[in-house]
Amino acid sequence: MTPKRGFASDNNAGVHPLIFKAMADANSGHCKGYGDDDYTRLAIDKFKQLFGNNTEVFFTLTGTGANVLGLNTLGTSINSIICADTAHINVDECGAPEKFTGMKLLAIKTPDGKLTPDLIRPYLHGFGFEHHAQPKIISITQPTELGTVYTVNEVKELSAMARQYNLYLHMDGARISNAAATLNLNFKAFTVDAGVDVLSFGGTKNGMMYGEAVLVFNPSLSPLFKYFRKQAMQLASKMRYIGAQFNAFFTDDLWRQNAQHANKMAQLLATKVKTIKGVTITQKVEANGVFAIVPHAVIAPLQNAYFFYMWDENRNEVRWMCSFDTTEDDIEHFAKLLTQLTQQHV
Amino acid sequence: MTPKRGFASDNNAGVHPLIFKAMADANSGHCKGYGDDDYTRLAIDKFKQLFGNNTEVFFTLTGTGANVLGLNTLGTSINSIICADTAHINVDECGAPEKFTGMKLLAIKTPDGKLTPDLIRPYLHGFGFEHHAQPKIISITQPTELGTVYTVNEVKELSAMARQYNLYLHMDGARISNAAATLNLNFKAFTVDAGVDVLSFGGTKNGMMYGEAVLVFNPSLSPLFKYFRKQAMQLASKMRYIGAQFNAFFTDDLWRQNAQHANKMAQLLATKVKTIKGVTITQKVEANGVFAIVPHAVIAPLQNAYFFYMWDENRNEVRWMCSFDTTEDDIEHFAKLLTQLTQQHV
Amino acid sequence: MTPKRGFASDNNAGVHPLIFKAMADANSGHCKGYGDDDYTRLAIDKFKQLFGNNTEVFFTLTGTGANVLGLNTLGTSINSIICADTAHINVDECGAPEKFTGMKLLAIKTPDGKLTPDLIRPYLHGFGFEHHAQPKIISITQPTELGTVYTVNEVKELSAMARQYNLYLHMDGARISNAAATLNLNFKAFTVDAGVDVLSFGGTKNGMMYGEAVLVFNPSLSPLFKYFRKQAMQLASKMRYIGAQFNAFFTDDLWRQNAQHANKMAQLLATKVKTIKGVTITQKVEANGVFAIVPHAVIAPLQNAYFFYMWDENRNEVRWMCSFDTTEDDIEHFAKLLTQLTQQHV
Amino acid sequence: MTPKRGFASDNNAGVHPLIFKAMADANSGHCKGYGDDDYTRLAIDKFKQLFGNNTEVFFTLTGTGANVLGLNTLGTSINSIICADTAHINVDECGAPEKFTGMKLLAIKTPDGKLTPDLIRPYLHGFGFEHHAQPKIISITQPTELGTVYTVNEVKELSAMARQYNLYLHMDGARISNAAATLNLNFKAFTVDAGVDVLSFGGTKNGMMYGEAVLVFNPSLSPLFKYFRKQAMQLASKMRYIGAQFNAFFTDDLWRQNAQHANKMAQLLATKVKTIKGVTITQKVEANGVFAIVPHAVIAPLQNAYFFYMWDENRNEVRWMCSFDTTEDDIEHFAKLLTQLTQQHV
Repeated sequence: MTPKRGFASDNNAGVHPLIFKAMADANSGHCKGYGDDDYTRLAIDKFKQLFGNNTEVFFTLTGTGANVLGLNTLGTSINSIICADTAHINVDECGAPEKFTGMKLLAIKTPDGKLTPDLIRPYLHGFGFEHHAQPKIISITQPTELGTVYTVNEVKELSAMARQYNLYLHMDGARISNAAATLNLNFKAFTVDAGVDVLSFGGTKNGMMYGEAVLVFNPSLSPLFKYFRKQAMQLASKMRYIGAQFNAFFTDDLWRQNAQHANKMAQLLATKVKTIKGVTITQKVEANGVFAIVPHAVIAPLQNAYFFYMWDENRNEVRWMCSFDTTEDDIEHFAKLLTQLTQQHV
Repeated sequence: MTPKRGFASDNNAGVHPLIFKAMADANSGHCKGYGDDDYTRLAIDKFKQLFGNNTEVFFTLTGTGANVLGLNTLGTSINSIICADTAHINVDECGAPEKFTGMKLLAIKTPDGKLTPDLIRPYLHGFGFEHHAQPKIISITQPTELGTVYTVNEVKELSAMARQYNLYLHMDGARISNAAATLNLNFKAFTVDAGVDVLSFGGTKNGMMYGEAVLVFNPSLSPLFKYFRKQAMQLASKMRYIGAQFNAFFTDDLWRQNAQHANKMAQLLATKVKTIKGVTITQKVEANGVFAIVPHAVIAPLQNAYFFYMWDENRNEVRWMCSFDTTEDDIEHFAKLLTQLTQQHV
Repeated sequence: MTPKRGFASDNNAGVHPLIFKAMADANSGHCKGYGDDDYTRLAIDKFKQLFGNNTEVFFTLTGTGANVLGLNTLGTSINSIICADTAHINVDECGAPEKFTGMKLLAIKTPDGKLTPDLIRPYLHGFGFEHHAQPKIISITQPTELGTVYTVNEVKELSAMARQYNLYLHMDGARISNAAATLNLNFKAFTVDAGVDVLSFGGTKNGMMYGEAVLVFNPSLSPLFKYFRKQAMQLASKMRYIGAQFNAFFTDDLWRQNAQHANKMAQLLATKVKTIKGVTITQKVEANGVFAIVPHAVIAPLQNAYFFYMWDENRNEVRWMCSFDTTEDDIEHFAKLLTQLTQQHV
Repeated sequence: MTPKRGFASDNNAGVHPLIFKAMADANSGHCKGYGDDDYTRLAIDKFKQLFGNNTEVFFTLTGTGANVLGLNTLGTSINSIICADTAHINVDECGAPEKFTGMKLLAIKTPDGKLTPDLIRPYLHGFGFEHHAQPKIISITQPTELGTVYTVNEVKELSAMARQYNLYLHMDGARISNAAATLNLNFKAFTVDAGVDVLSFGGTKNGMMYGEAVLVFNPSLSPLFKYFRKQAMQLASKMRYIGAQFNAFFTDDLWRQNAQHANKMAQLLATKVKTIKGVTITQKVEANGVFAIVPHAVIAPLQNAYFFYMWDENRNEVRWMCSFDTTEDDIEHFAKLLTQLTQQHV
C-alpha cells in the first residue's frame, strides 16, 4: 500500500509524529474511561489557559459532532440557525444538524463564504410569531469553507448583531489553527474576546488522528452538554487518547507550526499556478486552501495523479487543500504537471 | 501520571501493542478520507471472509453509534425494539436509540440478561393497530451485560421467533470476541448462521483504541446506511486508522487470544473470590465479567485501591471486568486485598 | 347510516347538544385565527378561574397532542419519563412521546394502573451519570386507564417524591372530569393544589367534538410552548370553535353533569353484570370504565351487537366504557344480552 | 362578541352553513372512533371518485399536519426537500417538517412563488455522496403563497424533472379548490394526472371548520402512513365530523362555488384598488389573494378597521385574502376606506 499524495483535504494527511508519539506514551496501564483520566484533564487545562477559565471544554469524535453539539447547546427545535450556504453544517453533514437539533437552517448566499450583518439582516424577522422558526444562532466558519478568514472586527460586528437580536454566535473552527496563523493572533482574540459564544475547535485537519473540542464560553449554557454528547454518540470511551493528542498539539505551539506550514504551502501553490494559462484563482488565499478555475480538459488527468475535489462542476472550479505535511516538492511537481497538461490539452 | 489498575471496564485497558503498531505502520503518506483507502478495504475483506460475502460492513466510532445505526437500519420511528431491561441500549446510552431512531424500547426483566421466546411473547401484540408502536426488532447482547452467553440454539430460537412475527434480530456484540472464545466457535456460527440480521461488532473493549463495525447480513437492508452513518456523526474522516486496527485485530486471531485471556482471568477471579466469606457470585461467569455481592463495608476501601463499578447499590452487587491485559498478579493482589478487607470490616 | 351503540370508548359518543349549540352560535362573522379571538380568550379565563391565575392555558387538537406537548415542556431528549406500563403515553400513542420529545419512557408494572412512591423508587438512580437518561418527569393518568382514581393524598405523595428528586409531576387528564366527579372535588384540589406541574385536560371524551387543553401551573415552564405547539401540528387555525366548546363545557357545570352521568352508568353496568355467572369485575369501578373477565365464547357475539375492545386477550378481559349519553336502557339491554349469551355459550 | 371582518386569511371566515349542517346531521348515536365509521368511509369514496381508485386517503387535523405527513411518506431524514423560499412548509410551520421528518429544506428564491426546472436544476447534485442530504422531493404549493397558479403544463414539467432525477413531486394544496376554480379543471387534471405523487388537500380555508386530507397516488408509498399519522398526533378520535364536512364539501360542488366566489372577490378587490394612487398590485391575482404595496401611512388605520397581514414590511407590501363569505359590500367599503386614507395620509 503506497498511497499517492494529494490536495483533496487536509484530512488526507496522516498524524503528526509528535502527536502520534503522545498517543504511544499514553498507551500503558489502566485509565478510567469517558474522560476521567489525567490526559484528558491536562488537555482541558490547556484549553482553559488558552481561552479563559470560564471555558467549558467537551471533546468529541468528529467535526460534525462538534458542530451539532455546539449548536444544540444554543437552541432548541423551534429555533433557526443563520449560516452561509457554503457552510459545512449546511452542505457537508448530511442533515445532521436538522436531525439532531430539529432546528431549521437559513442558508445565505455569500460571495466569499463570509456572513456580514447586511447579508443577515433580511432574515431577522418574525420574532415572537409562533408560525416562524425563531432565529437564535448565527453560525460562521473560521476560516470559511472558501479559504477566507474573518478579521477580528468582522467577528465583532457579527457578535454585536447577535447581542442586539438576542442571538448566539457559533464558530465552526474545524481549521481554526489556520485562521490563527493567518491573523497572527492567539485563539482567544478572535473567538471569546470577539464575542463568540460556542466554538467547534478542530484537531483532525491539523495533524491529529481524530478528536475535536466544543468550547462553551458561558458555563450557564452547558449544564446538559455531557448528556447530549453521550446521546449524540460522541463520547469516546478511551478518552485518554484524545487528551494525549491535544496535549501534544498545544506543546511548543505545534498547532501553529503545522498551520503556518499549511498556509505557506497554499500561498506557494497559488503563486505557482496563478500564472499558468487558463488557471484563475477564484478566492483570496487566506488559509490553507486554494480555489481555482482550470481548463476542463486537464481535470481528469490531474486527478489521476493527485487527489482533489471539484468545487463547482458547472464552472470547472476545483479546491486544493494543503496540510501540515505538504512539501515544497509536492507543490513543485503538481504545478509542473498542471503546466504540462494545460499546454497539451488546451 | 501513573494510573492505578482496575476492573471497572474492559475499556480501561489501553491498546494492544500489535494493534498500536498497525496504526503506526499506517501513519505515512496520504490516504483519501472517509473509508476510500486500502486499510479500510482490507479490513472489510477480512470481515467478509469471517461472516460471508453478502455481509455489508460499516465502521463506526463508538459502540453506541454501532447499536443506534444497526437498529436504525431495521426499523423506523413507529416501531418498537424488544430488549432486556439490562441492555446497553436501554440503560447505558442516554436515550440515544430513542433520539436518533424515534423507536420505543420495550424493556423486559430477565434473571440473567438473556431474552427468551417466553419472555418476549407477551409483548407481541397490537400488530396492525395504529395506536401501538409496531414491534419490529428483537435486540440481544452477546455476551449479555451480566456476563452470560447465549448458546447457538438460544440465538436460533430467538431468530425463529423473529421470522415468525416478521421481526428482525439485532445483536449487540460489543464484547462478541469474548462470546466466541467462550463458545469456542467462529463468529459466523452464532450470528449470521443463527439468524442474526444485524450485528454490532465491537473492537474497543478487546484491545482497540476506538472503532466498531456494523455488519448487515442482508444487503437489501442497508441502501441508505452510509448516509445515516454520516448523519449520525459516526463517519471517521481518517478512516484508515480504524481499518488498520481491525487488520491487526484479525491477524493471527489476535482477537481470540485477547478474549480468551480476559475470559480466563474472569474465571480465575471468580474462583479466587467465591470462597471469601461474605462474597457471593450472582451470575454465571461465562465471559470476562464477574458479578458479586460483597459486604457493604469493603466496597469503599476496595474502590480506593481498584477501579470498579457498583452494579446494584441496593444489594451491594458489584461488577468486575477483566481485559486482555489483566494479569494473574492483578487477580492475586485484588483477591488478597478483598480477603483482608472482609476480615477487617465484617 | 344508523350506527349501533356501544361501550368501546367514551369517544364513540357524539357531541353534547349544548356544546354543539355553542359552536353554532360562534359560527358567524370573522375571527382572527390561531386563538386571537374572544371565544378563546373567554375559555382561557374560565380555566384560570378554575385553576388559578398563574395557570398558562394552551389548547390542542388531540389528547396525544396535549400529552406530548405537556411532557415536552418539562424535559428534553436526555431525560426519562416514569409512567405506568398501562399509561396511554406508553401504549396508545404509537411512540409519539419518544418521537417528538426524544425522551425515554420507563414503564412500571402496577396492579391497578396507579403509580406509588414504592413502585417508582427503584427507578430513581443514575442522577448525574451521563450514560443514563436522566429521570425528570413522573406521569400519572387520572383516572387511570384501568378506571381507578388517585386520591388527593396519593397525588400529593407523588408530587412530594417528585420535589424531593427534582422531578416534575405530569397528569394525563383525558377523563379528568370523571375523576373530579368521583372525588366530588373541584379540579384544583387534586391537580395544582396537590402538586401537579402540568395537566392534560381532556374535553373530547366528555362531550366535546375535539379539543383538549394543556395547563401549565408555573409560567416559567412554558415560554416556548406556543412555538412547540405549532411545530407539533397542534395549533388550530379556527380556534374559536375550541373556545366555544369549552365555554359551554364549563357553563352550569355541564362537564360535571356529563361525567357524573357516565360514572353512574358504569356503576350500574358493574352492578348488573357482576352477578352474571362467569363474569368477574377485575378493577375497582371508580370512574366511567368497567373491566371484566368474561367467558371467551360470549365475546364475539357480544361484540357483534355492541362495540367494545378486548383489554387482555390472554385472559378474556374486556373494557366497557360509559359516556355522557349512555342510557339506563343501554345498560339494561346489554346486561340482558350478556346474561343470555353466558347461558347459551357457557 | 361582534368580531369585525377582514382580509387577514381565508381561515378567518367561519364554517359554511351546509357544512355545519352536515356536522349537525352526523351528531347522533355512536360511531367507532378513528375513522371506522360510515361518514369517513363515504368521504374517502368521494375522494377516490375525484382522484382515482388507486388514491390512498388520510384525513388530518391541520394543514401543517397534512404537509408534514405527506412529505414524510416520500423521504427519510437523510433526504432534502426542494421548495420555494415562500413555501408554507418553509416559513409558516415553525420548522415542523424538519422536526418530524428530519429532512433538510432547500429553499429557492422565486419571483412569483413558483418553482421551475431552471430554478431547481442547480440544487440537483451530490447524488450518492454521503456528505450531502440527498434531494428526494420537490414540493410546490398550488395556488402558491403569492396567489399565483401553476398551469397543468408547469406541473408536468416539474413532475418530468422529478422522474428524471428519481425524486417525488409533492403538492401543498391548502387552497387547491381556488386553483381548480381558476384553471376551470377538475382536481385530477393538475394533480395525479400531471404527475403529482402526494397531495395535501385543504378543506379549512374553503369553508370547513377543521380537517385536511393527504392523498397518496401510489399505494406502495403509504404502508406505514396510518402509524405515522397517529405518531404525528394527527389522528382525530371523533373522525366522523371530518368525514361529514368533506361529504358536504363535495356535494353539489360546494367546494367549487366557495372557491369561485372567493376568487371573484379577489378579482374585484384588485380591480377596485389598483387605480388608487399609491397602491401597486405586486403579483398576478390568479386565486383568492391580492398582494399590494400601499403607502406606509395608511397601513395602521386600515388595519384598525380590517384584519390583514403585512407581507413584506420593508417595502410596505400587504396581503389581502378573500374567502367564501367575502361580500361585494366588504370590498366596496374596504376600497372606499383605502381611497380615503390615501387621500388623507399621502
